[in-house]
Amino acid sequence: MEIFIEPIGKLVNEFSKLPGVGKKTAQRYAYKIIDMPESEARAFADAILGVKRKVKYCKVCGNFTEEETCGICRTREQSVICVVKEPKDVAAIEKLHEFKGVYHVLHGVIDPLSGVGPNDIRIRELLARIQNGEVKEVIVATNPDVSGDATAMYIAKLIKPLGVEVTRLAHGIPIGSEIEYTDDVTLARAFVERNKL
Amino acid sequence: MEIFIEPIGKLVNEFSKLPGVGKKTAQRYAYKIIDMPESEARAFADAILGVKRKVKYCKVCGNFTEEETCGICRTREQSVICVVKEPKDVAAIEKLHEFKGVYHVLHGVIDPLSGVGPNDIRIRELLARIQNGEVKEVIVATNPDVSGDATAMYIAKLIKPLGVEVTRLAHGIPIGSEIEYTDDVTLARAFVERNKL
Repeated sequence: MEIFIEPIGKLVNEFSKLPGVGKKTAQRYAYKIIDMPESEARAFADAILGVKRKVKYCKVCGNFTEEETCGICRTREQSVICVVKEPKDVAAIEKLHEFKGVYHVLHGVIDPLSGVGPNDIRIRELLARIQNGEVKEVIVATNPDVSGDATAMYIAKLIKPLGVEVTRLAHGIPIGSEIEYTDDVTLARAFVERNKL
Repeated sequence: MEIFIEPIGKLVNEFSKLPGVGKKTAQRYAYKIIDMPESEARAFADAILGVKRKVKYCKVCGNFTEEETCGICRTREQSVICVVKEPKDVAAIEKLHEFKGVYHVLHGVIDPLSGVGPNDIRIRELLARIQNGEVKEVIVATNPDVSGDATAMYIAKLIKPLGVEVTRLAHGIPIGSEIEYTDDVTLARAFVERNKL
C-alpha cells in the first residue's frame, strides 16, 4: 500500500519539482495545503495559473511584464542600459533602488559547451536598441563566471566601435567579509581590479 | 515601483505561506513556475485543488482518505490501535512497514494553555471504538512533550479500566547517536525507562 493516498502523493510530487525541495519538505508543504481553508488553496492555485497566463516578456528589454513593454522601459531614462542574464537579475538590482536606467535581459549567456552562441541570446536586439537610440553607456552585469565573462567580452567588442561606453560591474572582496576568508579566485580578481586611492 | 509585477508578487506571497519559506525561497519557487511549460503549471495548480477537493478524513480513524473509511481501517487487523496526534504521524509510522494494526488520529493533544481539552480532540471516538470492538492494545504514540505526555496519561486512565492494555512508544537515546551528545532531558528519560538485560 502507498503511504500517501493518490491526491496527496500527487501534490508531494509537484512540490518536489521546486528547486531544492526534497521529499520531506514537499510533504510538509502538502500538509500545509491540506490544512488551508478551501478559499486559500484556490487563491494559491490561481496565483500559479495567473503567473503563466499574465506574465509575458517586454518586447524592448525582455524583462517580465503584463503589458507590451514593461514599466521600467516606459518610464525610465534610456541613456544607460544594464545588460543581465535573466529577469531575476533585474529584480535583484531593482531592490537596490540605485540604478535609474533601463535593462536588457539576454535570456542566457554565451556558452559554447552547452551550444549557446551569440545568436541564441538577445544580443541582436541589444545592438538594435543601441543603433537607433540615445544610449551613452552599457553596463554589463553578467555573472562573474566563464560564460558571463565571455558574454561581457563579446558585447564590449561589438558595441565599443559604435562609440558607446561599455562598463562591467566590479568584482572583488565582498563588503563585510575578510581577506583571510576570501576565496582565491575572488582575491586574485580584487588584485587585478585594484583602484587608485 | 514594485519590484515584482502583480502576478509574480502574488505568487511569491502565496509561496511565502508555506512553512519555513521566506521571501527569497518564495521568489526562487515563483521563477521556477514561470519557467515551467503551461501544462506543468496547470498540473501543479490542479494538484493543489485536488487535495482540497478529494481528501477527507476517515470516519473511523480520522486519517486522510478519499473514501468513507481509509484503506488501513478497511484491510488491517483491528485488535491493536495506534493513537497519534496528526495524520502526518500515520505517514511517518507507515513508512516503517512495521506496525500491522490500525490508527486513531486525535487531531490534536490536550493542551490547557491553548484551551484544548479532552472533548476538543477525538478521544470520545476512540472510547467508542474500544467499547464495541475487539481491541486488545492501545499504543499511544503522541509526541514526548508536555501535552503529548498529558494526553497519553489521560487516555491510559480512561482506557485501562476497560481491560485494554495501554502502552506508549519508548523514549531514549536515538540509535546511532552518542551519550555524550544526547540532550539532558532525553538522557534522564533514558535512565527512567531503562530496561533489564
